[in-house]
Amino acid sequence: MADFDLHILGCGSALPTTRHLATSQVINLRDKLYMIDCGEGTQVQMRLARIKFSRLNHIFISHLHGDHCFGLPGLISTLGMLGRRGPLFIYSHREMEDYLQPVLARFCMGLPFEVVFNAVDTGKHALIMEDRSLRVYSIPLKHRIPTCGFLFEEKAQEDHLIREMADFYRIPVSLRRGIKQGDDYITPEGEVVPHTRLTRPAKPPRRYAYCSDTAFSPDITSIIKGVDLLYHEATFAEADIARARQTAHSTAAQAASIARQAEVKRLVIGHFSARYDDDSILKLEADNVFPGTILAKEGLVLPV
Amino acid sequence: MADFDLHILGCGSALPTTRHLATSQVINLRDKLYMIDCGEGTQVQMRLARIKFSRLNHIFISHLHGDHCFGLPGLISTLGMLGRRGPLFIYSHREMEDYLQPVLARFCMGLPFEVVFNAVDTGKHALIMEDRSLRVYSIPLKHRIPTCGFLFEEKAQEDHLIREMADFYRIPVSLRRGIKQGDDYITPEGEVVPHTRLTRPAKPPRRYAYCSDTAFSPDITSIIKGVDLLYHEATFAEADIARARQTAHSTAAQAASIARQAEVKRLVIGHFSARYDDDSILKLEADNVFPGTILAKEGLVLPV
Repeated sequence: MADFDLHILGCGSALPTTRHLATSQVINLRDKLYMIDCGEGTQVQMRLARIKFSRLNHIFISHLHGDHCFGLPGLISTLGMLGRRGPLFIYSHREMEDYLQPVLARFCMGLPFEVVFNAVDTGKHALIMEDRSLRVYSIPLKHRIPTCGFLFEEKAQEDHLIREMADFYRIPVSLRRGIKQGDDYITPEGEVVPHTRLTRPAKPPRRYAYCSDTAFSPDITSIIKGVDLLYHEATFAEADIARARQTAHSTAAQAASIARQAEVKRLVIGHFSARYDDDSILKLEADNVFPGTILAKEGLVLPV
Repeated sequence: MADFDLHILGCGSALPTTRHLATSQVINLRDKLYMIDCGEGTQVQMRLARIKFSRLNHIFISHLHGDHCFGLPGLISTLGMLGRRGPLFIYSHREMEDYLQPVLARFCMGLPFEVVFNAVDTGKHALIMEDRSLRVYSIPLKHRIPTCGFLFEEKAQEDHLIREMADFYRIPVSLRRGIKQGDDYITPEGEVVPHTRLTRPAKPPRRYAYCSDTAFSPDITSIIKGVDLLYHEATFAEADIARARQTAHSTAAQAASIARQAEVKRLVIGHFSARYDDDSILKLEADNVFPGTILAKEGLVLPV
């Protein structure tokens, strides 16, 4: 398990099957959890994946179709029964609050924590959340109703101070933080020891992009350029491209084309239509355009 | 598979576990389906149990706690996507409509069928539904909010006409229906052949009672007297009887005591608390009072 992982909890589309569940994912960044979408059954999938409910503070919902949010009432009820105290932040189209507040008022009276709704303008690419570990940006998508994806961008970490160098120069503890952040060290004798000799560079910040549900939309490639991992919906095979257009979804080849244009490092496809008994046709078609495409699967964990 | 079966889709209580799902059951009476409660995940359980969505026309909801009804929006959406045309009847406390209508209006616009709400007075034992195959009665239960159980009573079937007797007496086809329903046959010579010589009696009508969620409530024994199968909640073990009282639930021994007092033929217990890693303690405690108690389990099918 790396320190920045994507957990796939559900990667089917709206119709339930015995193979896939409705959409939900959890990002685990150094034990802080961020959920993306919350279809029916998400809380049970969290249990199966041994994901700790208490570490989840932020939920991002791409759009108000049931297969992306019907798990919220049950999950929030459960968090209440587990005695949660801290606020739970939900980021989504403003209508989420109109839907969810009456349901919570009816079924979750006396909830011991606050649900804080943050309205997202799904038509804009903008910073929508920032904490000590990461920044999250919206990605405008093209679907039948207002929809956005999410770009998770790890914040740059401090460089690592080389223990042997710190000991050799007897660098005071009070100066070490500054050196990790880029300072040189000046010895009591006035010798300048450059930052680069004292430290090992931190890993470059990693980025994960989630794009579901969406029609083929090359406009997003500039936003997701070069991300370490892209999840892109691939509801249909190429034979059903007319149906994809009609329903504002993508084919596997279109998902791969976006990945290639955006020069992403890895692509994982999901949101598979119930019509395919075997998803390998989708992998085949994506691989032709973006070799090494990964098929999402319930329970799959991918390092970002 | 008999012609009157109970399918257990979920038999856990509110907190999700990896062992049990939220409450739902389906009664299959000669290929007509009747659902009782619809917790989150019910539609996926239906798929796993290979239950045909198109044969479901009636849904009975015991009470408005999320673990008994949060699966309704997803199930109804799915029925719409599958192109259902006929009305879907929901029987429940009148507040169900207040909850569900706004959700359907938001998420299921253009639903190709009607959802018909039938308000049930949960405080009364009354006939709430009748069709050609059965009658369904409410059973007032004691819980934290208005709650009722349901008694499914098969209608008496016609006696079976004995083919050899019908041929021997050359009974006209036009008279056979009447004979199955109790008529004697009078030959052209005026001989009276009694009904009992011409027919084999139909099986006695079978009855199934569902009682969940409820505190220990001996008042119900007269209603469920002698049923062929009783599902009674058994959320807690005897060691947690204080918690059972506090939350208006039953222990396994209390469920068994109701079964014994009501002289039911078989008892199946469910709605197990998440606190028990192993439900066998509940079976043990129930067996002491009502030997042969059955533990509910997802996927279990019981003939009524």
